[in-house]
Amino acid sequence: MKLTILFGGASFEHEISIVSAITLKQKLTQFDLTFVFCDQDHAFYLIEASKMKAITFSKGAHKKMPKLSLSHGAFVQKGLFGTTEHTGTVLNLIHGADGEDGSIAALLDFFSIKYIGPRIDASVFSYDKRYTKWLCNARGIKTLQHEELNLKEHSNIKIPYPIIVKPSRLGSSIGVSVVKDESKLDYALDSAFEFDSSVIVEPFLEGVKEYNLAGFRANEKFYFSIVEEPQKEEFLDFEKKYMDFSRSEQVLDAQISKELEAKLRTNFEKAYKDLFEGALIRCDFFVINNEVYLNEINPIPGSMANYLFEDFQGSIEILMNSLPHVKKAKVNYEYIHSISKAKGK
Amino acid sequence: MKLTILFGGASFEHEISIVSAITLKQKLTQFDLTFVFCDQDHAFYLIEASKMKAITFSKGAHKKMPKLSLSHGAFVQKGLFGTTEHTGTVLNLIHGADGEDGSIAALLDFFSIKYIGPRIDASVFSYDKRYTKWLCNARGIKTLQHEELNLKEHSNIKIPYPIIVKPSRLGSSIGVSVVKDESKLDYALDSAFEFDSSVIVEPFLEGVKEYNLAGFRANEKFYFSIVEEPQKEEFLDFEKKYMDFSRSEQVLDAQISKELEAKLRTNFEKAYKDLFEGALIRCDFFVINNEVYLNEINPIPGSMANYLFEDFQGSIEILMNSLPHVKKAKVNYEYIHSISKAKGK
Repeated sequence: MKLTILFGGASFEHEISIVSAITLKQKLTQFDLTFVFCDQDHAFYLIEASKMKAITFSKGAHKKMPKLSLSHGAFVQKGLFGTTEHTGTVLNLIHGADGEDGSIAALLDFFSIKYIGPRIDASVFSYDKRYTKWLCNARGIKTLQHEELNLKEHSNIKIPYPIIVKPSRLGSSIGVSVVKDESKLDYALDSAFEFDSSVIVEPFLEGVKEYNLAGFRANEKFYFSIVEEPQKEEFLDFEKKYMDFSRSEQVLDAQISKELEAKLRTNFEKAYKDLFEGALIRCDFFVINNEVYLNEINPIPGSMANYLFEDFQGSIEILMNSLPHVKKAKVNYEYIHSISKAKGK
Repeated sequence: MKLTILFGGASFEHEISIVSAITLKQKLTQFDLTFVFCDQDHAFYLIEASKMKAITFSKGAHKKMPKLSLSHGAFVQKGLFGTTEHTGTVLNLIHGADGEDGSIAALLDFFSIKYIGPRIDASVFSYDKRYTKWLCNARGIKTLQHEELNLKEHSNIKIPYPIIVKPSRLGSSIGVSVVKDESKLDYALDSAFEFDSSVIVEPFLEGVKEYNLAGFRANEKFYFSIVEEPQKEEFLDFEKKYMDFSRSEQVLDAQISKELEAKLRTNFEKAYKDLFEGALIRCDFFVINNEVYLNEINPIPGSMANYLFEDFQGSIEILMNSLPHVKKAKVNYEYIHSISKAKGK
């Protein structure tokens, strides 16, 4: 099976995406993989599998590799003796901006290239934490209370300390701070506003139980990973997350009741259905007093959360064979024809 | 001032977009206009101004005109003696799919081309009527009660007749029906589900007052059109709308109180702010018992609602000079460098 791993992007998570791609090279050995790198200037390069090392990109060696352009149904490579089309289904592995904000989805849809990854609308609802709240409210999923702050006008925060301050539109803990009292607030806000003009504030709950669940829907059926209880640190900062994105060893199933697992799955399904089809996502939950709260949706989780699946390659294959169809409008100019006729020309 | 009118698209509103573009050719005489047509296969063509007639497209004559491709900062035309770059700011005039669903926004952003039109997230919240409801709920804007129906599972409708049935994701009244009693329901649902797998139902309110208001935000200030009371027919079907998109004569200001006008503007601002920047939109409101309800957001209104603006060309110029900047992430490979160093290579 041909599969094109698309990674990189003009994103704060650019490096993390490289790490994810290198990890997937090791995990998807049954696939005929092609690697396409998107650099920070939005140029595409075809990367030889043997060159899939972090140093290739940090040293700029990718610039000597073949450039690609997007065309109908394929990434196209122009050579001296003609063009080569790379037509495989794409796995969108660009974390953060470009990959998760809907841009890559729109590009691939526009050029009729099949892909694994969130569609435009799913991207908008997972990329911006404010809109994730709207999604949850509309679909009856509990989330923590929150306040939205705006760079230009923000009033007093009503949520009692400790609080967590996050840029609305970034992942991987970039710009995120836990603030224990007011004296640290300004610094935390400055850090967050450096990355986004919109910031959200939530209560920071110490010692709360966290569970991650990945999955996807294919052929109208849900496929779930095991449930993981992530290692507890106050929260993972970017460097720890960076290392985290290279995870490839399967983790142990969290010790939770069947009832709780069912509750997590129900909440996952509520968030996913009729929105995330085509994507393998990871939902991160809190459990407080036996109630499930959705914390975050990762529509392109680090290294595709391979370590949560018993049969990761089989899962990707199932998803690949059940990607959403885009229904395209047919244009037949009937109104123009009928009006021209009425005018007698 | 250079301005590129981008129109067409693989959309049920393809023909309407052509009509809009022809109308704007007449209304934007102070601009140095370039016309770029997107056909139903997503190929771009440069259209000579003198060929801007409906018949050019319905007869396929555009296929003999120069093909363009998207490149960094421009639409590029390849010729025998080199390439020409068309670098003007784009006015996205593709109504419906492609133009209003976020695809064109993503493409233009990705290739760093400036444009007038809704950004990706604004597109998602206006294109899908379900998400417009979520936006309104979150921002304290009243909307009519509604129910969502799904092609595969839909239960009894609880809203009393007469009701209006609409595909969730189309504009221009396509697939929309007013249903007066249950005997007509199945037919109306079939018509709507022909265009979308999701349908919304609202009460149909006879004799309700309707007002349209267009506007945009530039330099942190709102600019509003006059308020129009649209001609009342039960509702405009596609053929009437088709003619409507060629409107170019300024309409009369609706006879409403200053208080009501202020209320309409406040609701417009609530919907627009921090979301629709860069776009000139038209909001269609209902007024019931002196309360304002948002019915629909048109992020690319027919012929840009030129007929509602006293100084349409001046308005476009103000908006053009105040388009949102995309803050691009800088990639410096610091994590890869520090990890390589730690590993001693």
